[in-house]
Amino acid sequence: MQEVLKHLEAHFQAYLAELAEFVRIPSVSTDPAYAAEVAKAAHWVAQRLRRSGVPEVEILETPGHPVVYGAWETDPRRPTLLIYGHYDVQPPDPLERWQTPPFAPAIREVSGEQRLYARGVSDDKGPMLIPLLVTEAFQAVKGAPPINLKFLLEGEEEVGSRHLEAVVQAQLQRLKADFVLSADGAMWRPGVSSLNLSARGLVSLEFSLIGPSKDLHSGRHGGAILNPLVAMARLIASLHEASGRVAVEGFYDRVCEASPGERAAIQALPWEDGAYLAEIGAQGVYGEPGYSTLERQWIRPTLEVNGLWGGYTGPGGKTVIPSRAQAKLSCRLVPEQNPDEVRERLIQHLHRHCPPSMRLEIQAEPHGARPYALPSDHVGLRVARAVLRETEGQKPLEVRMGGTLPIANTFKEYLGLDTVFFSFSTGDEDFHAPNEFFRLERFRLGLEAWARYWWRLAHLEGLET
Amino acid sequence: MQEVLKHLEAHFQAYLAELAEFVRIPSVSTDPAYAAEVAKAAHWVAQRLRRSGVPEVEILETPGHPVVYGAWETDPRRPTLLIYGHYDVQPPDPLERWQTPPFAPAIREVSGEQRLYARGVSDDKGPMLIPLLVTEAFQAVKGAPPINLKFLLEGEEEVGSRHLEAVVQAQLQRLKADFVLSADGAMWRPGVSSLNLSARGLVSLEFSLIGPSKDLHSGRHGGAILNPLVAMARLIASLHEASGRVAVEGFYDRVCEASPGERAAIQALPWEDGAYLAEIGAQGVYGEPGYSTLERQWIRPTLEVNGLWGGYTGPGGKTVIPSRAQAKLSCRLVPEQNPDEVRERLIQHLHRHCPPSMRLEIQAEPHGARPYALPSDHVGLRVARAVLRETEGQKPLEVRMGGTLPIANTFKEYLGLDTVFFSFSTGDEDFHAPNEFFRLERFRLGLEAWARYWWRLAHLEGLET
Repeated sequence: MQEVLKHLEAHFQAYLAELAEFVRIPSVSTDPAYAAEVAKAAHWVAQRLRRSGVPEVEILETPGHPVVYGAWETDPRRPTLLIYGHYDVQPPDPLERWQTPPFAPAIREVSGEQRLYARGVSDDKGPMLIPLLVTEAFQAVKGAPPINLKFLLEGEEEVGSRHLEAVVQAQLQRLKADFVLSADGAMWRPGVSSLNLSARGLVSLEFSLIGPSKDLHSGRHGGAILNPLVAMARLIASLHEASGRVAVEGFYDRVCEASPGERAAIQALPWEDGAYLAEIGAQGVYGEPGYSTLERQWIRPTLEVNGLWGGYTGPGGKTVIPSRAQAKLSCRLVPEQNPDEVRERLIQHLHRHCPPSMRLEIQAEPHGARPYALPSDHVGLRVARAVLRETEGQKPLEVRMGGTLPIANTFKEYLGLDTVFFSFSTGDEDFHAPNEFFRLERFRLGLEAWARYWWRLAHLEGLET
Repeated sequence: MQEVLKHLEAHFQAYLAELAEFVRIPSVSTDPAYAAEVAKAAHWVAQRLRRSGVPEVEILETPGHPVVYGAWETDPRRPTLLIYGHYDVQPPDPLERWQTPPFAPAIREVSGEQRLYARGVSDDKGPMLIPLLVTEAFQAVKGAPPINLKFLLEGEEEVGSRHLEAVVQAQLQRLKADFVLSADGAMWRPGVSSLNLSARGLVSLEFSLIGPSKDLHSGRHGGAILNPLVAMARLIASLHEASGRVAVEGFYDRVCEASPGERAAIQALPWEDGAYLAEIGAQGVYGEPGYSTLERQWIRPTLEVNGLWGGYTGPGGKTVIPSRAQAKLSCRLVPEQNPDEVRERLIQHLHRHCPPSMRLEIQAEPHGARPYALPSDHVGLRVARAVLRETEGQKPLEVRMGGTLPIANTFKEYLGLDTVFFSFSTGDEDFHAPNEFFRLERFRLGLEAWARYWWRLAHLEGLET
């Protein structure tokens, strides 16, 4: 193992040069003008897998951008990891806010640390390249990695992984593994590694309240009929209690309360409401009584209004009573809430609270996302904890995600696999913004940690839980 | 007097031809492409006044379209009327929905009545032409009208009478009169004349609630802060009681309750909620308890939401907690409510109900409109009642307006004059829509009624009140 680490160390500058070469390819998945560049990046990735010794490499075409698949089955008695990452990147706009061009990687020292600046370097090309390089190191030193590896590296993560589900469904046999190790999914804070235990699910709903069949003059008709905007305001107001708790009947029915241990772990994390409020520019925290801010974001379900509109919204005034008021809602879900059931509860609530003079029209999105959670003693987490304690000299933070992890749901649903997120990018690295960067030290640490991870997984004895 | 009526009768076909000539001029005030046509219409009106014998005729230029002024002071001991009307018209779009071209007047028989179809024929060229023709008849038969006349005929009514206030302010002396008789302002229903006793005032306000300083991802932040859209919904919901009564403290303080007689008069009008709901396509009436629909529209104040918006309003979903929610409100006011005071009450309410974590930003429109009401025994109304009883054999309906009459406020504020509305167009004549028409019988009736009006005003004795 020491030899592998030495090999990684010795080749660090070469790896950095390779990462620079990788990020020079503007593989912007959302813009058709870059389609050839996305294809080029897929070929680059496939080539890199082959050079790392991966014997089975295939570019799986989709109606969109391809998925690069690789497999190196070394020993059927050893564990098998399915490694996930993506080679596509966000658009670089606004270009004028970049200090150096987005596809001309540049190393700069900022805040005492070396950073590589380029679009996609943190999300996800840097983190994604790590397992490919670690494979090469094992091949060079040991002839092969210590476990079985499968790679699923997609080119559409930044456009909602449009065709990933279809690819997974079509490749059920080839994707068999013990669990997924994801090179995507940034760590929580700079300076300390973290492991993500859960993500919330999602269900969305749009609805309209329709009063009169056409817009009316509010002079002539004002006072005589219920204004759909007032009806909408009341309906939205009925969704929560004043305290902040969701007032939809049955909303919390299946919510699995966090254990005292889980709550204590969240309580122990470094967090200050004051600093949080300063970051988002808000005046106060607010939410379900009895829970801290992190608990409200991570382990409690929520119902948010994402859009609300009706009537005249342009400059100046217009004396109108609109025919219709509209709203978009979404709920974040926690185990064991079910998106379909929550959607039903929500619709029932809207019907129950819709005034008799209003017609309710509901456009529910057919697909919700289930909440995702890893058991705290999942072997993939135990390995990760041990590795990070070893590389960083301290226990990683155990965090959760308020948002949704669609790929974790996809792998769970079709392959029955849990996903352990083991990216070495950090949430502050301006991915999706100008001047995206990746910390060189995290790149180095990632190479070491992934090598140790595979080694430990291959030799599971003695893992602390 | 009979000779004047005979003269009007005898010249009816000629007058009709004149009206047709007048509506051939496309005096669309809102579209700069028609500016020359608007000027042409002003000259046509000035010429018509001169031909009717009006000795003092002047085209008053404004930064927009001109006002045509005329004066015929016959006897300082007689009453003086200021006659108001407008010679500009709405745009004719959509052209394809006109059965005959908008500026090519055509007579058609519909529902057993003769109608003249053309843009502006009902609003307001037909009604406006009446006093000019009646002046001519008096001149022809008697040498002069029986009262003193002043004319103020504007070319910007359809664009909000932009420069009328300035003209009135500049002409205070020349506009001195006993009251205003308006040739604009349609009657309520076809088949029976009506007199308008009041119009509601108006005050408008726009405001924002601002939470975080930028839009936030509702996955990461959902549940942890108060969503501005939820705060807005609650604030809007707080403006009314569930019953429909306005909940703003002090809102009703100065409201002058209608007398039992006034309420009985409204109660006696032909009205069915069912027919009203069918007309507007709504499911039910709703409003301040204890009042009928017409009372809610005419003699009770109201607070309406004219616009409400925030967050993502495009197609599909976006998981956002917006930084800001916005709303536009307007109140209709009744005597003796004061727009400035109501605005203050409203602002106080918003501040009082704004949650501590939200910042309230108010953009109040500086100008409100006062409510307008004529005393029921106003001499101008008494004359009108007597004339209409005589010409139609029945008492006119006494109605009110839910909307605002800016010109009545202008004349009241600057000249201290009440305005009696005595138009012979009807609310169903599709002004502001394709196929605008004016009923020939109402044109004939208008000529007779205006002649009788002036005659009666000149000989006030024996008027029933």
